[in-house]
Amino acid sequence: MKKNVKSRKLVLKSQRKKRVKESLTPEKQVLGLGPKIVNSIMIGLEENDTSHIRKIVEGLDEYDLAKLIEALDVDDRKKLIEIIGGHLDPSVFPELNEVVQEQVIESLDEKQIVNIVNELDSDDAVEILEHMDDDEQTQIINKLSPELKFQVKSSLHYPEDSAGRIMSRDFVSVPDDWTVKEAKNFLLTEENLPDEFYTLFMVDDKMHPTGELALDKLLRAKANEKLSNIMNGEIVPVDVYTDQEEVAHMFREYGWRSAVVVDNKGHLVGVINIDDVVDIVHEEVSEDIMHLSGAEEGDVYKSVNSIWKSRIPWLITNLFATLLASSVVKGFESLIAQLSLLAVLMPIVASMGGTTGNQTLAVVVRALATKELTSRNTLRMIGKEFMVGLMNGLLFASLIAAISWFVFPQYKDLSLVIAIAMVCNLCIASLAGILIPLILNKLKVDPAVSSGVFLIALTDSGGYFIFLGLAKLLLF
Amino acid sequence: MKKNVKSRKLVLKSQRKKRVKESLTPEKQVLGLGPKIVNSIMIGLEENDTSHIRKIVEGLDEYDLAKLIEALDVDDRKKLIEIIGGHLDPSVFPELNEVVQEQVIESLDEKQIVNIVNELDSDDAVEILEHMDDDEQTQIINKLSPELKFQVKSSLHYPEDSAGRIMSRDFVSVPDDWTVKEAKNFLLTEENLPDEFYTLFMVDDKMHPTGELALDKLLRAKANEKLSNIMNGEIVPVDVYTDQEEVAHMFREYGWRSAVVVDNKGHLVGVINIDDVVDIVHEEVSEDIMHLSGAEEGDVYKSVNSIWKSRIPWLITNLFATLLASSVVKGFESLIAQLSLLAVLMPIVASMGGTTGNQTLAVVVRALATKELTSRNTLRMIGKEFMVGLMNGLLFASLIAAISWFVFPQYKDLSLVIAIAMVCNLCIASLAGILIPLILNKLKVDPAVSSGVFLIALTDSGGYFIFLGLAKLLLF
Repeated sequence: MKKNVKSRKLVLKSQRKKRVKESLTPEKQVLGLGPKIVNSIMIGLEENDTSHIRKIVEGLDEYDLAKLIEALDVDDRKKLIEIIGGHLDPSVFPELNEVVQEQVIESLDEKQIVNIVNELDSDDAVEILEHMDDDEQTQIINKLSPELKFQVKSSLHYPEDSAGRIMSRDFVSVPDDWTVKEAKNFLLTEENLPDEFYTLFMVDDKMHPTGELALDKLLRAKANEKLSNIMNGEIVPVDVYTDQEEVAHMFREYGWRSAVVVDNKGHLVGVINIDDVVDIVHEEVSEDIMHLSGAEEGDVYKSVNSIWKSRIPWLITNLFATLLASSVVKGFESLIAQLSLLAVLMPIVASMGGTTGNQTLAVVVRALATKELTSRNTLRMIGKEFMVGLMNGLLFASLIAAISWFVFPQYKDLSLVIAIAMVCNLCIASLAGILIPLILNKLKVDPAVSSGVFLIALTDSGGYFIFLGLAKLLLF
Repeated sequence: MKKNVKSRKLVLKSQRKKRVKESLTPEKQVLGLGPKIVNSIMIGLEENDTSHIRKIVEGLDEYDLAKLIEALDVDDRKKLIEIIGGHLDPSVFPELNEVVQEQVIESLDEKQIVNIVNELDSDDAVEILEHMDDDEQTQIINKLSPELKFQVKSSLHYPEDSAGRIMSRDFVSVPDDWTVKEAKNFLLTEENLPDEFYTLFMVDDKMHPTGELALDKLLRAKANEKLSNIMNGEIVPVDVYTDQEEVAHMFREYGWRSAVVVDNKGHLVGVINIDDVVDIVHEEVSEDIMHLSGAEEGDVYKSVNSIWKSRIPWLITNLFATLLASSVVKGFESLIAQLSLLAVLMPIVASMGGTTGNQTLAVVVRALATKELTSRNTLRMIGKEFMVGLMNGLLFASLIAAISWFVFPQYKDLSLVIAIAMVCNLCIASLAGILIPLILNKLKVDPAVSSGVFLIALTDSGGYFIFLGLAKLLLF
């Protein structure tokens, strides 16, 4: 049954490719699904025309159906799933955006979910199950076919985003004392092999990995050659608990195409292929972008309500940061009452500090993720960032002092105040931009998530304090 | 000669892997190079002990030498290259960070560069040549070996970041009317094949691609089967001018492992493999992070001077934005003189607007890059973002009004002013966060680069204007 879904999926994929070929502009490639169908479905949903909707959906392949489900808004999506529920093609799931996948699952009952998950490959099944709460997950797993149940359970045994979770259990391993001929014969005659594979993995009699052999090397080797003589025996096994970001880093660093995953006894338990790594790289870097801004991925597919809720925490922390800055200004209220021009100029110092700090922050967060920032060069990098802050401080201090001198000739001392404040705040901002993520990283807190709010609290409050404090000291 | 470098490289790579295997912690894996060697080199550089330095460098494989060059600061790096210059192992280059690569090239003379480039694969050679100015590039290309010269020239003929630039010209293509046996024999006997390949590409007699066959399918097929019967004939050729970001998107969207690249006559001219795509995905998404903050990648390896220069443009544009905001405040100077409390509260409205807008901005910039934002859902997304802005506006308006009411009981009307200003500015910020990148995208300007400054100009100036304007209207 499972095999059927898979082979049908492959046939449909090639049909899809054919269609893509016929319509070559990039926009069209993504929109295999015409706006007419989407509109027709939306009208059908409004009129509750169940049979009309079912008829359209039956005519779509799983790829177009996924695009259709994604194209609807959250409520229509829910309605559609309720209508097609039991008839939903399981092979749609791997094609859906993660957020949409969860929404669809929420609209299905337990029996429907079990039927769908049973038709999926174990990695796709795990992707659905890992986001459920424990009770629901256990109930569904217990109703799966024995083979899938075993695979899913062993996968879920490992932490999310670990090598054990992302590895494939579908790989070809052969004894390393075989000859090329034996291996070729095995591949020709063995029926139970993965649909796709690119490398053979050699194991000893205890299932310890001893080497790997890409298929091109096998094809080019002499028939009576021992595999152990031609294999790459210097493989680096990945521990099953290694984080996926670390795995992706190793692939990039060493130019791997595949990696063997071993358990704590060194037994070969799975394989990670480079095509899985493409998605991990994309996911990890995109996560950093979102974290730096306090947003989340998949917002395109979420309801207003869930987008709203997801953005509140970041806004609340920012509110605290800005209230802190406000209270600094409050301390100088009487000063501002005497010279309201200070209120005009104070945002400049704070804003330039924030911008400077954010530049450093982005560089440092990425350099930490890619391990370009090591114990060897951290101190030097701190020094460099401070120097850059100082130089930019001097440059923009001169600029803003000149502007202030020109625009407010009656307050010449103010130029000096804003210039000194600018230099100080830009130096602080640069140092904060590197030290905050470094400290958070040491404390095992993701620096992409929370560096920004600490930084802005410091550069805003610091900027106001230095500027207004200096004004008090030098002007009155 | 070229072959030698390559095979030596492979041997060294496997030695490297062995060493990695022995020292398993992630930190150690990256630091194959001990701090002792780095220090010893630094002392050698200080004392101008050329022979000592040459001796150490000779003992390093190309991987460790690359790490050593990266570990030094810019000046020491220059000195080291001047000392080892002519003896520099060409295979170091592909291992170097792009920024460091450029710095090393700048420290070499033309003859040394020609010698090094001549030893590299065409894609690594192109990576070095593409950053040179035209005269220098032409001079060096003219001195390359005929074969490399041809390959490099045809690569450089295509725009940077196009499929033509990133594709490999080293692939295996066979006539589609061959049998499995003929193909296998060809692979066994043909000497001039790429070092690594994973797929055979079928062509007709005019070199038009007609299909592809993964090696596992070849290994599992019957000997007398025609390739045209078992190949995947539904391939989607990529045009040679397609942008690399688009190529990466197609790989992710269609789950490709490789793609054929064709010229305007439909002739097969190259192949892109998934391992090239990993780096593209990483590069493109990282670029977006840096652009959103106005920084650049590779700053870890740059001199203070070049980091400083690269960050100025963004700070200047931000200066304009903040001067604009200041001039808004200037318009209300007399109002602030009357009630200095306004200066205390005004940063809150501006700052919350900026944060809200940046959340939307990050989501939209990514959704544009991944094509999740299409003509189908743009209008709905604008509506959703506006609603989120409104709801957050109402939430934080209530919060800040309550705080203001509690802290400044003598100015009860101020609570109303800041509440209304908060709602308005957060709505504006949300709309700006989606409309600015959409408009820039329409105008073919990279939305990641310049959206931020427009946004902050709007939310700061807007925030001050609405808050102070309302205060003037309602309080006096």
